[in-house]
Amino acid sequence: MSETLKIAVINGPNLNLLGKRESDIYGTLTLEDINNRIREFAIGKNLELLFFQSNREGDIIDFIHSNSSVQGIVINPAAFTHTSVAIRDAIAAVSIPAVEVHLSNIYSREDFRKDSFIAPVCVGQITGFGYYSYIMGLEALINHLT
Amino acid sequence: MSETLKIAVINGPNLNLLGKRESDIYGTLTLEDINNRIREFAIGKNLELLFFQSNREGDIIDFIHSNSSVQGIVINPAAFTHTSVAIRDAIAAVSIPAVEVHLSNIYSREDFRKDSFIAPVCVGQITGFGYYSYIMGLEALINHLT
Amino acid sequence: MSETLKIAVINGPNLNLLGKRESDIYGTLTLEDINNRIREFAIGKNLELLFFQSNREGDIIDFIHSNSSVQGIVINPAAFTHTSVAIRDAIAAVSIPAVEVHLSNIYSREDFRKDSFIAPVCVGQITGFGYYSYIMGLEALINHLT
Amino acid sequence: MSETLKIAVINGPNLNLLGKRESDIYGTLTLEDINNRIREFAIGKNLELLFFQSNREGDIIDFIHSNSSVQGIVINPAAFTHTSVAIRDAIAAVSIPAVEVHLSNIYSREDFRKDSFIAPVCVGQITGFGYYSYIMGLEALINHLT
Amino acid sequence: MSETLKIAVINGPNLNLLGKRESDIYGTLTLEDINNRIREFAIGKNLELLFFQSNREGDIIDFIHSNSSVQGIVINPAAFTHTSVAIRDAIAAVSIPAVEVHLSNIYSREDFRKDSFIAPVCVGQITGFGYYSYIMGLEALINHLT
Amino acid sequence: MSETLKIAVINGPNLNLLGKRESDIYGTLTLEDINNRIREFAIGKNLELLFFQSNREGDIIDFIHSNSSVQGIVINPAAFTHTSVAIRDAIAAVSIPAVEVHLSNIYSREDFRKDSFIAPVCVGQITGFGYYSYIMGLEALINHLT
Amino acid sequence: MSETLKIAVINGPNLNLLGKRESDIYGTLTLEDINNRIREFAIGKNLELLFFQSNREGDIIDFIHSNSSVQGIVINPAAFTHTSVAIRDAIAAVSIPAVEVHLSNIYSREDFRKDSFIAPVCVGQITGFGYYSYIMGLEALINHLT
Amino acid sequence: MSETLKIAVINGPNLNLLGKRESDIYGTLTLEDINNRIREFAIGKNLELLFFQSNREGDIIDFIHSNSSVQGIVINPAAFTHTSVAIRDAIAAVSIPAVEVHLSNIYSREDFRKDSFIAPVCVGQITGFGYYSYIMGLEALINHLT
Amino acid sequence: MSETLKIAVINGPNLNLLGKRESDIYGTLTLEDINNRIREFAIGKNLELLFFQSNREGDIIDFIHSNSSVQGIVINPAAFTHTSVAIRDAIAAVSIPAVEVHLSNIYSREDFRKDSFIAPVCVGQITGFGYYSYIMGLEALINHLT
Amino acid sequence: MSETLKIAVINGPNLNLLGKRESDIYGTLTLEDINNRIREFAIGKNLELLFFQSNREGDIIDFIHSNSSVQGIVINPAAFTHTSVAIRDAIAAVSIPAVEVHLSNIYSREDFRKDSFIAPVCVGQITGFGYYSYIMGLEALINHLT
Amino acid sequence: MSETLKIAVINGPNLNLLGKRESDIYGTLTLEDINNRIREFAIGKNLELLFFQSNREGDIIDFIHSNSSVQGIVINPAAFTHTSVAIRDAIAAVSIPAVEVHLSNIYSREDFRKDSFIAPVCVGQITGFGYYSYIMGLEALINHLT
Amino acid sequence: MSETLKIAVINGPNLNLLGKRESDIYGTLTLEDINNRIREFAIGKNLELLFFQSNREGDIIDFIHSNSSVQGIVINPAAFTHTSVAIRDAIAAVSIPAVEVHLSNIYSREDFRKDSFIAPVCVGQITGFGYYSYIMGLEALINHLT
Repeated sequence: MSETLKIAVINGPNLNLLGKRESDIYGTLTLEDINNRIREFAIGKNLELLFFQSNREGDIIDFIHSNSSVQGIVINPAAFTHTSVAIRDAIAAVSIPAVEVHLSNIYSREDFRKDSFIAPVCVGQITGFGYYSYIMGLEALINHLT
Repeated sequence: MSETLKIAVINGPNLNLLGKRESDIYGTLTLEDINNRIREFAIGKNLELLFFQSNREGDIIDFIHSNSSVQGIVINPAAFTHTSVAIRDAIAAVSIPAVEVHLSNIYSREDFRKDSFIAPVCVGQITGFGYYSYIMGLEALINHLT
Repeated sequence: MSETLKIAVINGPNLNLLGKRESDIYGTLTLEDINNRIREFAIGKNLELLFFQSNREGDIIDFIHSNSSVQGIVINPAAFTHTSVAIRDAIAAVSIPAVEVHLSNIYSREDFRKDSFIAPVCVGQITGFGYYSYIMGLEALINHLT
Repeated sequence: MSETLKIAVINGPNLNLLGKRESDIYGTLTLEDINNRIREFAIGKNLELLFFQSNREGDIIDFIHSNSSVQGIVINPAAFTHTSVAIRDAIAAVSIPAVEVHLSNIYSREDFRKDSFIAPVCVGQITGFGYYSYIMGLEALINHLT
Repeated sequence: MSETLKIAVINGPNLNLLGKRESDIYGTLTLEDINNRIREFAIGKNLELLFFQSNREGDIIDFIHSNSSVQGIVINPAAFTHTSVAIRDAIAAVSIPAVEVHLSNIYSREDFRKDSFIAPVCVGQITGFGYYSYIMGLEALINHLT
Repeated sequence: MSETLKIAVINGPNLNLLGKRESDIYGTLTLEDINNRIREFAIGKNLELLFFQSNREGDIIDFIHSNSSVQGIVINPAAFTHTSVAIRDAIAAVSIPAVEVHLSNIYSREDFRKDSFIAPVCVGQITGFGYYSYIMGLEALINHLT
Repeated sequence: MSETLKIAVINGPNLNLLGKRESDIYGTLTLEDINNRIREFAIGKNLELLFFQSNREGDIIDFIHSNSSVQGIVINPAAFTHTSVAIRDAIAAVSIPAVEVHLSNIYSREDFRKDSFIAPVCVGQITGFGYYSYIMGLEALINHLT
Repeated sequence: MSETLKIAVINGPNLNLLGKRESDIYGTLTLEDINNRIREFAIGKNLELLFFQSNREGDIIDFIHSNSSVQGIVINPAAFTHTSVAIRDAIAAVSIPAVEVHLSNIYSREDFRKDSFIAPVCVGQITGFGYYSYIMGLEALINHLT
Repeated sequence: MSETLKIAVINGPNLNLLGKRESDIYGTLTLEDINNRIREFAIGKNLELLFFQSNREGDIIDFIHSNSSVQGIVINPAAFTHTSVAIRDAIAAVSIPAVEVHLSNIYSREDFRKDSFIAPVCVGQITGFGYYSYIMGLEALINHLT
Repeated sequence: MSETLKIAVINGPNLNLLGKRESDIYGTLTLEDINNRIREFAIGKNLELLFFQSNREGDIIDFIHSNSSVQGIVINPAAFTHTSVAIRDAIAAVSIPAVEVHLSNIYSREDFRKDSFIAPVCVGQITGFGYYSYIMGLEALINHLT
Repeated sequence: MSETLKIAVINGPNLNLLGKRESDIYGTLTLEDINNRIREFAIGKNLELLFFQSNREGDIIDFIHSNSSVQGIVINPAAFTHTSVAIRDAIAAVSIPAVEVHLSNIYSREDFRKDSFIAPVCVGQITGFGYYSYIMGLEALINHLT
Repeated sequence: MSETLKIAVINGPNLNLLGKRESDIYGTLTLEDINNRIREFAIGKNLELLFFQSNREGDIIDFIHSNSSVQGIVINPAAFTHTSVAIRDAIAAVSIPAVEVHLSNIYSREDFRKDSFIAPVCVGQITGFGYYSYIMGLEALINHLT
C-alpha cells in the first residue's frame, strides 16, 4: 500500500439526521461522529477520504461521475438501496470498486428492505454493524485494492 | 388550541401544474387556489402554515429535515407515494405527525397507485376529495394535536 | 346548504364493541360516544342522520337498499372492507356517494388489511384518525354534495 | 320428462335491485321480470319452481339445506361467487346438481370477478346472456336430469 | 326471426376425436353425433349452420375471417382457449357475436384450464353440459341476435 | 379445577348437515352425535357447555359478543376459516381463549383450505381427527385455563 | 385397547434445547420434562413409548424406517416442518399413522412457518398448546388407532 | 411541414457518460456525438431542437413543465424508465406527444428493465438501435405531428 | 449501401384484416396500403423486399427458414408476440437481424400484451406508430446492416 | 419382443434446422443425421419407425391422430413444450405411451423453458443428452412396452 | 471405451425402502433388485460401479467429495431434488458429469416436485421409467464420456 | 478487550473443497489457508478460535449447541443459507451473537441465493470479499462484543 488510495464515502438520504433520529435502529452517533471514526481509522493508512452525503439521488450520481479518479467507494445508499436503478447504473458505469454498507441489519426489518438494486454491481455488502460497517467497508476496499 | 400550531403543507411532483393538467382527474383549481382555500380555512384557527411544493424528492426531504419545528405535516406525495422510501424514512426520522392526502381516489386508478410507502408512517390518509382532502388533512392534524 | 341532507352512518362488524375492545388500536370511545360526537358536529348543519351498525353483511346491504333516499353514506366496513364484494356491489348499485372511514391506520397493520373492495366505488377514503375519521367523512360528504 | 321436476332458482346479493341498478351492465329487467320469463319458459314443461333471493350468505345456505328435495338448482351467486366458500360447501354437501349463471360476462370485468368458488362444484356455468342465462340454466338442468 | 340466421359452429383441436377419446371427461358422442344433434335442434328455426373443426389455430382464424357474413359464432376453442391470443384477436376483429362453449366443466380440472383468452371478447361462455353446451350456445346466440 | 368452566362450542356453516353430507370427508356422526360425545366427555369435569351452530357469519359474531362471560371457545369455523376477517376480529376483540378445530385434515385438501384467518388469534389449532378434534379442543382449553 | 400400542414420539432440531431456549415462545419445560409428562399420561394406558430427538433430518428418517413396527407416530418436526420433503416421504412410505404437533402456534409467527410439508401426509396436526400438544397428539393417535 | 416544429430531446441519468461507459452495451458514441447526429439529421427539416440531460428526476420534470411549448418530446429515461412514476405523470400532465427511446434492447437485459412506467403514456417506444433510436424517435414524432 | 439489401417484411395473425378491423386501435390503412408505403419508402434505396403475412405460426417459421438469404427481417408478430416460443427460436436459429414492430402501443393495452417472447432475440423493438413503425423498422435495419 | 413395434419419432418446430443452427446449444448433427443414428440403433430390434417433423402444431396433432396404430411416441416438442396445450391433449386423447425428449438441458436455460405442458401426460422425460436423448427415448419406450 | 469407467450410482432418502413402499408410484423392485439390474447391464461394458444410498444430505455430499476419481455420477436425489442446494453445489464443485434420474414422472405429481435444484448442474435428467431410468442414466453417461 | 474472547468459526457444506473447486467464484485459497489467515489476524488479539466445518446441517446445529460458551460465531452457511430453518433456529436459540459471511457476492448470482434464512437472526451479514469476509466478520464480532 505504498501509494495513497483515494476513497469516497457516500451516504444516502436521511443519514444527515443520524444520532438525532430513531436511535433504537440506527444508534446514537451522528454522521460527523461516524466520519471522525472513519478518519481515525484511516490515520497512517495512506488514505485520502472524500465524504459526501446527500438526500438527492441525482447529487449522488453526479458525485460518483465527477470523482471518477477515486479508487474505491464505500456507499450507504439508505432508502435508495431499494429504489434507485440510477445509482446502480452510475456505479456500473464508472467501474470503480464499491462496497455497500448499512448501519442496521436490513434483513431483519420490513420486507421491502431486503432487496438491493445496488449490491449486485458492488464488490460486496456489509450490513448490521452500526458505524463499524463503514470501517469494515473501508478495510474491505483496501484489501480488495491492494 | 391556545398556542399557534405550525403546520407544513407539502406537495409532491407535478402538483404545480394543478388546474392546468388533466382536470377530469384532478379538478380545475390551481395549487395556488388550493393554498388560498387552505389559508381561508386557517383564519382564526391560530395556525401558521408553511407551503412547499417540489418536483424533487430530495428537496422534500430537505424541507422536512429543516422544518423540524413544525408540529404537523399535511403531505400530498403524488407520484412519490408509490416510489419513495426516502420520504417515508424522512417522516419516520423527524417524528412529526403527518397526514397523507390525495386529490383523486387512488384506489380507483391504476394498480400501482394502490400502494403507498408513506401511509404506514403517517397518522392517517385521506384520499379522493379534491382540494378538500387538504382541508380535512389540516383538520385531522389539528384534532390529533389538540 | 339550504335543504336538509339525509346521511347514513354505517358501521360494520365488531364496531358495537368499540371502547370495550382492543383500546390500544381503536381507542376508548364507545360507538354511542362516537355517534354522539357526530350528532354534536351535525348541530346547525341541517343534517338528518341515520345510524346503523350490524355484524351482518346482509343487513348492511339491506340497509343500503332500503335507504336509497339518503344523499350520502359514511361507512366504516371494518372487517368487511377486505372481504365483501357484496357491499361493494350494493354501494355501486344505489349510486349514492359514499365515504369509507377507518378508526385505525389500516396501512400500518396486517398486510391483508391494505386491500379494500369498498374504496374503489366510494368518493374517497379516510383512515387513521379515530372517531374523527367519521366527522371528516361527514364533512367530506357535505362538501361533495354541496 | 313424465314426472314433475322441482327446481330452485336462487339469486344472490343485490339482484333484488335488478332493473333499477347499473342497467348498462345488468340490463333493464327487474328480478320479477326475469322470474316471469322463467315461469313462462316453464309452462308445459312439468316443472315446479322455487324462487329465492337473498342478500345474506347464511339465508342462501339455509335455503339450500332446507330444500334438499329439489332435483336441481339454478344459482346466480352474484358477489358471493368470488367470496363464499360456505355456499360452495353447501352445494357440495347436498349433492343436488347445480348450474351457476351470471347476467353479465364476468370474464370481461374486474380481475377478481374471474374466480368462482362455486363453479367447481356445479355441473357447469353459463355467463353473459342477461336474463337468458337463467333460461338456459334451467334447460341445461332439465337436460342433465332427464 | 323471420330471416335466416347464418351461424358458424367452430371446434378446436382434438375435438375430431370426440367419442373415441377420454370418454369419462368428454362423453361418448362423436363430433358428428353432436353436429347432428345441433342440426336437429336447428330444424324449423330458420338457421343456416356452417360446421368447422380444425386442429390448427391458423385455419380457425382463416375460417373466421372468410366467413365474415355469418351473424354469430359458437366456438369450442378446446386447448386454444388457454393459449391463443390470435383467435381472441380474430373474434374481436370481425365483430361477430360469439359464444364460447365447453363440453366439460373447465373450472373443476387443471388450474391452467381456468383461464380463457377467448371469453372476454365473447358475448358469454357456457361450460360443463356436454353436447348440450352447443345447443345452448346456439340458443343464446339466437336470443342475442333476435 | 374447583370452579365451573363455562365453554362455548361453536360450529360454522354446513356443519348442521354433518353425518348426512360427504361422509368420506367428514365421517358419519351427526352434529348432535358429536355434541353428545362432547357432553359425555364433560361429565364430572365441572364444565358448563354452550353449543351453537350457525350458517351465518353475523350470528356467530353476535354469539361471541353476547357470551363474553365464557372462559373459553372451541370453534370449528368450517368455510369461514378461510374467508372471515370478521370472526377473527370478534375473537380478538373479546379476548377469550379460543381453539380452532377441524374434522378433516385441511392440509390435504384444496389449496385455499390451507389458509386460516382465525388460527393466528387462537391459542392453537387442531385438525384432522374427526369428532375427536372437538374433544381435544376442549381438553386443550381446560389445560390452558387451569 | 386390550393390546399394547407402540408409539414413537419424535422431536426435530433444536428441541433438545427446550426450557433453555426462547422460553417466551416455547415455555420453560425441558424436553425431558415433556417426555416425563407424556410418560405420566401413558400410565395405565397400555402404551409402549419410544422417545427420539435429533437435529439431523437423516437420523429422523432412519428412525422412522427402522421402527416400522410402531403403530403410530407423534412428531414435532420443528424447523423441518417447513423444509423437509424427505421426512414427508418417509412418513408416507412407512404408512404409519402420524400426528404433527407444535409447541407454539405456528400460524401467529413468521410467514414461512405457516407451510408444512409434513401435515398433508399425517392424520392431523395439533399446534399451539405447549407440552400439551404432545399429550393430545398421543390421545388423538390412540383414538385413531382404537 | 411548413412551420417549425420545436422538439425536446431529453436524456436521463448516466447518459452523460455515454461513450465512456460500458461500451459493449451502449456503444462508443458520446452523448454529444449522438446530439450532433441528431442535429445533422434535423438539417433542412425545419426543426428546432432542445437538448437536455440530467441525472435528476426533478430536473427532468421541471424541464418538461417549463417547455410546454414544444410540440414533441424524444426521451430516453434510462434508469428512470423503471422507477419514475413522477416523470410518467409529468408527460401525461403536459399532454405533449412523447416517444420513449433506448440505446440497448431493454428486453434482453435484467428482468427489471422490462417494465416501463413511461411507455404507457407515450405515443410509442423504440428500443435497441443505439444512437439511431433517437433519429427514429425524431422521425416518428415528425410523422406523428404532421 | 452499394449492394442490394434483401429484407423480409413479415406480418402475423389477423393483420390481413387491417383497415377493416378495429380502426380505433389499428388505424384505417389496409395491409396492402402499408406495404405500398413501405415500397414507396424503399424506392431508390437499393432494397429488395419480400412481403409475407400469415395467420399460421408454422407458415411464418417456414418462411423464415426458407428465406435465410435475406439480410434482415421486419416482423410484426401480432398475437404471436405473446405466445410463440417457436417464432422466437426460428429467429434465433437463422441468425438474421430482426426488428419487432407494432402498430399500436402494446404497453398501453391489456397486461398480457406487455410481454414479448420475440423482442429478446431481435435487434430492437418499435411500437406505437401505426404504419410508420414498419418504415422505421426498415430504416433501423438498413442502419444496422450498413 | 417377438412382434414388430411401430414407433413414431416426432420433432417440433425449428428442429429441421438442426446442425445448421446454434450448434453451441444443440450440437452439429442434422436432423437427418439423428434419424440415421436412430435407424442404426433400431437395426435388429424389430422396430418400425415413422419419422415426422413439423413447424406446425396442427400438423403434429394430425400426425398423432392419424397414426393411432403406433405403439409408442418419442417426441421432442421443442418450443411447443412450453406453449401447446393442444399437443398435450392430443397425446392424452390417443392414449399412446409417449416419451418427451430434449437435446439440450432445458433446466439450465431460460426460466420459461422449465415448464412443460407435455411431460405430465407422458411416461417420462429425457433431457440434455443431444441426439442420444432420442436413442434413450426409444429404449425407454421399448422397455416400457415389453 | 477401452479403459474402465468408474461410475457412482447415488440414491437419496427413502430409496432404501423401494419395493416395500408405495409400489403404485415407485414399483415393486427393491433397491438391491435395481442395483442388480444395473450390474447386469454393466457386464462386459468395462465399468466399475460404486453404489451408495443415504438418507442424509451430508453423507451424499461427503460421498461425492471423497469419490472425486469417478468419471461420472448417476444420482436419484429423491426428496433432496427439491430442497438441497448443498448437493447441487457439491456436484458443481467436483465437476464430474452427473445425470439426475427419477423412478416416477415427477411432472405428474405434486407441484413442488416439478422444481429441481440439481438438474441445472447435471448433463441431463431422466424421469419416469422406473428402474430403467437408472439403466438409461448409465448409458447416457457412457455415451457422454466416450 | 482484557479477557479472552472465544469465537467459533463455522463453515457449511462444500467449503472443505475451497481452492479445489470453482476458483472463478470462490478463489484459490483452501479452507485451511483461510483458517490460517484468520489465525494470523487473531494473533495478539486475545482470541480463542474454534474452527468447524461440516457438510451436515445436523452437525452444525450440534456444534452450535455444544459450544454455548463461545461469545460469538462467524458462520458461512454456504448452501444452508437458503434452505436451513434449523440452523436459523439454533442460532436464535443459543442467543450468541453471530455474523453471516460469504466469500462471493451472493447478490450477483442465481436468484435463489438472494434469500437468507440465517441473516435475520444474526447481528449482520458480510458478503463478497473472499477470505477477507471472515476477517471482517471476526472484527465485527470483536467490535460488537467489546
